[in-house]
Amino acid sequence: MKIAVLGGDGYCGWATALHLSARGHAVSIVDNYARRQWDEELGVQTLTPIRPLAERLRVWKELTGNTIEVLVGDVTDYDFLASAMEAMEPDVAIHFAEQRSAPYSMIDRQHAAFTQVNNVVGTLNLLFAIREFQPECHLIKLGTMGEYGTPNIDIEEGYIEIQHNGRKDVLPFPKQPGSFYHLSKVHDSHNIMFTCKIWGLRATDLNQGVVYGTMTDEVALDEALINRFDYDEIFGTVLNRFCVQAVIGHPLTVYGRGGQTRGFLDIRDTVGCIELACLNPAAPGEFRVFNQFTEQFSVLELASMVQVAGEKLGLKVKLDHLPDPRVEAEQHYYHAKHSKLMDLGLKPHLLSESLLDSLMNIAMTHRHRVDSALILPKVNWREPRNDRRRATGTLRSMAGAFDGV
Amino acid sequence: MKIAVLGGDGYCGWATALHLSARGHAVSIVDNYARRQWDEELGVQTLTPIRPLAERLRVWKELTGNTIEVLVGDVTDYDFLASAMEAMEPDVAIHFAEQRSAPYSMIDRQHAAFTQVNNVVGTLNLLFAIREFQPECHLIKLGTMGEYGTPNIDIEEGYIEIQHNGRKDVLPFPKQPGSFYHLSKVHDSHNIMFTCKIWGLRATDLNQGVVYGTMTDEVALDEALINRFDYDEIFGTVLNRFCVQAVIGHPLTVYGRGGQTRGFLDIRDTVGCIELACLNPAAPGEFRVFNQFTEQFSVLELASMVQVAGEKLGLKVKLDHLPDPRVEAEQHYYHAKHSKLMDLGLKPHLLSESLLDSLMNIAMTHRHRVDSALILPKVNWREPRNDRRRATGTLRSMAGAFDGV
Repeated sequence: MKIAVLGGDGYCGWATALHLSARGHAVSIVDNYARRQWDEELGVQTLTPIRPLAERLRVWKELTGNTIEVLVGDVTDYDFLASAMEAMEPDVAIHFAEQRSAPYSMIDRQHAAFTQVNNVVGTLNLLFAIREFQPECHLIKLGTMGEYGTPNIDIEEGYIEIQHNGRKDVLPFPKQPGSFYHLSKVHDSHNIMFTCKIWGLRATDLNQGVVYGTMTDEVALDEALINRFDYDEIFGTVLNRFCVQAVIGHPLTVYGRGGQTRGFLDIRDTVGCIELACLNPAAPGEFRVFNQFTEQFSVLELASMVQVAGEKLGLKVKLDHLPDPRVEAEQHYYHAKHSKLMDLGLKPHLLSESLLDSLMNIAMTHRHRVDSALILPKVNWREPRNDRRRATGTLRSMAGAFDGV
Repeated sequence: MKIAVLGGDGYCGWATALHLSARGHAVSIVDNYARRQWDEELGVQTLTPIRPLAERLRVWKELTGNTIEVLVGDVTDYDFLASAMEAMEPDVAIHFAEQRSAPYSMIDRQHAAFTQVNNVVGTLNLLFAIREFQPECHLIKLGTMGEYGTPNIDIEEGYIEIQHNGRKDVLPFPKQPGSFYHLSKVHDSHNIMFTCKIWGLRATDLNQGVVYGTMTDEVALDEALINRFDYDEIFGTVLNRFCVQAVIGHPLTVYGRGGQTRGFLDIRDTVGCIELACLNPAAPGEFRVFNQFTEQFSVLELASMVQVAGEKLGLKVKLDHLPDPRVEAEQHYYHAKHSKLMDLGLKPHLLSESLLDSLMNIAMTHRHRVDSALILPKVNWREPRNDRRRATGTLRSMAGAFDGV
């Protein structure tokens, strides 16, 4: 298949592009290097040193003989995206090309508006470009389990049958997203559902859980192919962060009581799920939703697992219960369905000490690169930075970004 | 009370500003005259000649002694909005300042993206400005009944209790909006709900039905105060359009079988509902949703009523069943609750032949201004205009906008 990976220079996008290329698909990457720019803006670096994309792809070709094309540009620029669609003629477009950090979206008004405009306009452009140039193309869109929030009922996969006053209907599952970022994904889901209905587009919305890990079979082939391992408060996901905290002797930063329960998955399952979605496309007009995670954990459970794994490596790991900078329930019911990808054949990599050991070893190897100033949370959901009369329209330097909120 | 009416130069905003000023409130209007610009862009005019805002307000002051301040600017410009909030210090902010036409949002990609960015960013800015400068201010936001679509169950007011697998919760009512405009309102609702939760803002979301009529007690005082009466396919609402069609002898443009059923209200009830919301504010942290309409009708029922009213005036009124340019069910269940505003004391003006007579008389009076080329629908939900490589970032001239879709 001809597959376009939008956002293929990022964390999940890179692993996916290599995985699909290794399976023999003709992969093209569309990226504007925004993820690298945000590191510069925030003054942070991934734990693992990331090579320039051109170098990564040169090594990939040397190792495998497979070429991955790159189209450099921004999906919010329709002229660029239209040209790219005409050049690639993809059978599948996998859309990772969004701002994907909740804390980033909560810094201030400008970052909130940027996140929503960037994500919503990028996705709208992609929908119009598919309709205009490649109407049979299957859109695979990365959503998030965070769209659902934590309702007091079981979370279904996208839709729920509601009985009410003697009648019933199958309706979109109600959404209660918890950040301006998560809201942007809810906006996207509604927009995509609508275009499937009116234009007959075919789409799969993958409501992904929190991803952990950095190694996939392809990434492991060479150091030049290494993937991101973010541990800062803005882009780091919780398990990766805890592993880094453990190896540098920082207490694990549990927010509040740590009862926040979410769905999680190994990045090897991210790429596996996306391959399954490619091989089993949605029908024309179908807006299909899969919940893409393999296990549920509370934050406190993850912290305890890292504690145990750390002690096996001779590390003394403490927990610290910080005031929760987010507005979220610290104890709540959580039971989310996730059978549709299993039904398509997913064989999950469940979290075990052996994986934790390998994560911890990667953290150990690169611990000289850790900037401990990046560990503690500074963005606060209740107190965004005021940004009156600051320059708008461009991403400002974040030097001093969190002063005086 | 100090009341800011954002979008106070538009159809509902103008009537609301006068009504609240007449009740003794200190009213300020914030407007960027976008509504007048869209008329220029589309080459259309309201049936009723609208004076410049400054002249309207001068006459209002002469007649009543009441001053209404005007702040000219765009709510998507945060610097402007912040200054306006500091200057006005409103107790209530009523937010009409959005692009409010479904067909306009369906013209092409650019109009879809403009509508969503304009509406979402304007509302985000307002939420941040209220938090930063006037956190006790009660936000009254105009939503639309179109957010709900036409589910096969009763439509509740914003929330629904769902029983599922032995558990239950009260959750946001699932939304199935039918245009990029309606989607923008769903995005707004989610964003507002979130800020009430995290910042304790107070908000009322008025999911308004289709408004008809043009006269309120205040507008009727002087010809200089006359309100808009749009009959074109982009901004005209169905009953106003049918009245104009009847008086010029054009067959009434019923889309498809005409079974599309919606909630409707008289513009006198729009201003009454908003006054009730002002006088009974939401509590801090509360995101309250009212369904703001008084009666349900199908399009065919409205057409028949106009036919009867027209024949009383000696007009021969025919119906024409056109292919539906929208993607919507032409026969469906529809039963939407609307008791909350009644409970606050709303006394509805129900649709009757006498109102239809007065609407038809207004249409008669101004029928020499009707451009019959504006009657038939040209925007098609299934076939937006392709806009590859057109200039972006500005509203283009719509001369030829609908050619070759």
